[in-house]
Amino acid sequence: MKFTKMHGLGNSYVYVNMFNENLPEKQLSETAVRLADKNKGIGSDGMILIYPSQTAAVKMRVFNNDGSEAKNCGNGLRCVAKYSYEHGLVTTTSFTIETLGGNVEATVSVDHENCVQSVTVNMGQPRLLAKEIPMKNEHSEAMIVNEVIPVYHQDIRVTAVSMGNPHAVQFIDSIEKAPVKEIGPLIEKHDRFPEWVNVEWVEVVSPKEIHFRVWERGSGITQACGTGACAAVVAGVLNGHLEKESEVTVHLLGGDLQITWKDDGDVWMKGPAEYICSGDVCL
Amino acid sequence: MKFTKMHGLGNSYVYVNMFNENLPEKQLSETAVRLADKNKGIGSDGMILIYPSQTAAVKMRVFNNDGSEAKNCGNGLRCVAKYSYEHGLVTTTSFTIETLGGNVEATVSVDHENCVQSVTVNMGQPRLLAKEIPMKNEHSEAMIVNEVIPVYHQDIRVTAVSMGNPHAVQFIDSIEKAPVKEIGPLIEKHDRFPEWVNVEWVEVVSPKEIHFRVWERGSGITQACGTGACAAVVAGVLNGHLEKESEVTVHLLGGDLQITWKDDGDVWMKGPAEYICSGDVCL
Repeated sequence: MKFTKMHGLGNSYVYVNMFNENLPEKQLSETAVRLADKNKGIGSDGMILIYPSQTAAVKMRVFNNDGSEAKNCGNGLRCVAKYSYEHGLVTTTSFTIETLGGNVEATVSVDHENCVQSVTVNMGQPRLLAKEIPMKNEHSEAMIVNEVIPVYHQDIRVTAVSMGNPHAVQFIDSIEKAPVKEIGPLIEKHDRFPEWVNVEWVEVVSPKEIHFRVWERGSGITQACGTGACAAVVAGVLNGHLEKESEVTVHLLGGDLQITWKDDGDVWMKGPAEYICSGDVCL
Repeated sequence: MKFTKMHGLGNSYVYVNMFNENLPEKQLSETAVRLADKNKGIGSDGMILIYPSQTAAVKMRVFNNDGSEAKNCGNGLRCVAKYSYEHGLVTTTSFTIETLGGNVEATVSVDHENCVQSVTVNMGQPRLLAKEIPMKNEHSEAMIVNEVIPVYHQDIRVTAVSMGNPHAVQFIDSIEKAPVKEIGPLIEKHDRFPEWVNVEWVEVVSPKEIHFRVWERGSGITQACGTGACAAVVAGVLNGHLEKESEVTVHLLGGDLQITWKDDGDVWMKGPAEYICSGDVCL
């Protein structure tokens, strides 16, 4: 089977062009697990399949390295957009990508050789009410902005944002001092978050620049979390540190993203997508 | 650059055919680190280069995923033998492979389609004196066979074998009860082993079959350790559980190896080598 391995900020997947390849539905989970295994497979965070779509330019399906199917993947969307444009699956620089979580708008920026330099995708509208996060609160219709929750022996202030998945954002003076490993797991499974939560630390450098660290729900410390970067910028606006309609550079461990929370409510994410290798894999 | 990813019992490397490719010496370490990275590279335990040799059929150089160069690699040797035979770099089924640790004899077993089914390599002679392991001992010229060393609150009996690297082998009744994670690190860095030691647990099923677990020096729990499997069989013979000149099947987490300690003193290892994928990688 032909494959291409790509990454967005170190979040890597094995991509298969299903315009040409054929994989039976019942083998998809097992194939994802095998391809993702570093020891006996290629090694990746999972497998992403690119199909023809009835409702968009292309359709993507994301399989995690445990074989489960994910609704969406911000870093994967950028790679699918780059692959689709450079392999002629789409012919315009703006197009939509069908995902299990709905259709997503994408725009590729190309250089003079028609290579994609970066990709911008619409990550949709944040949801901010306690019940939408979900977060237990006296008033379930209230927003949680810079509110104290007791964690171990400390009071920690969090702002809660859902980007389809839940995030608890904290602002700190120095990103180097973020207690990701120590406090991350305690907030992740805190009583107030019935579905657990992704935990973010943000240092505001300027109204256009922040540093970012994340403890991902179920994964721990990761190089990059696209929805977390979006949540961080939304939380920054809600707390008066950042502005709407302003492109904010977010420095993640794996690299930089540019995030804009537009006046119409949508959050746009711009970032890189990179090829690693391509060839044939034995299945 | 063209690459092939292969594994032996889950020990995977990115192989580069240096008969065709060209990589400057000063970039080898950095390239190995980048290729081995699962996030932004292919993902592997390291990189193995296959060159023409002055003194053997082919020459291999092994780079670990931290960029350091290794003397040798048992699982890698089998893959180099399979690759070299199937790609016509050698024309006989028995040949020698030059390594940083010396020349190694290899024999490939082929099926009716001339595909390599398994590879047998000569892992050389074990060294058994305390000073050769090295292991601190009252008598440095003595062998350490089933001797007690105190570990935490227990007395543990070990047999010490060097296969170029040091091993401490223990025999237990049930491999499922091997306290690899708990006791492995304590023996690995025990005072008696000045260069640290690989730690093995062996359950003897019969004179021709053993179960095997390993705590690798510097790596912890791994799927397979070729030199450890050899050391286990040598220790088994020294303790009267196994016999010389007898092929012993060793069940490792990653699969099976057949090990024979011959009367002439050499230890031969037979096992699988598998292709995973091949193609072009962006550097």
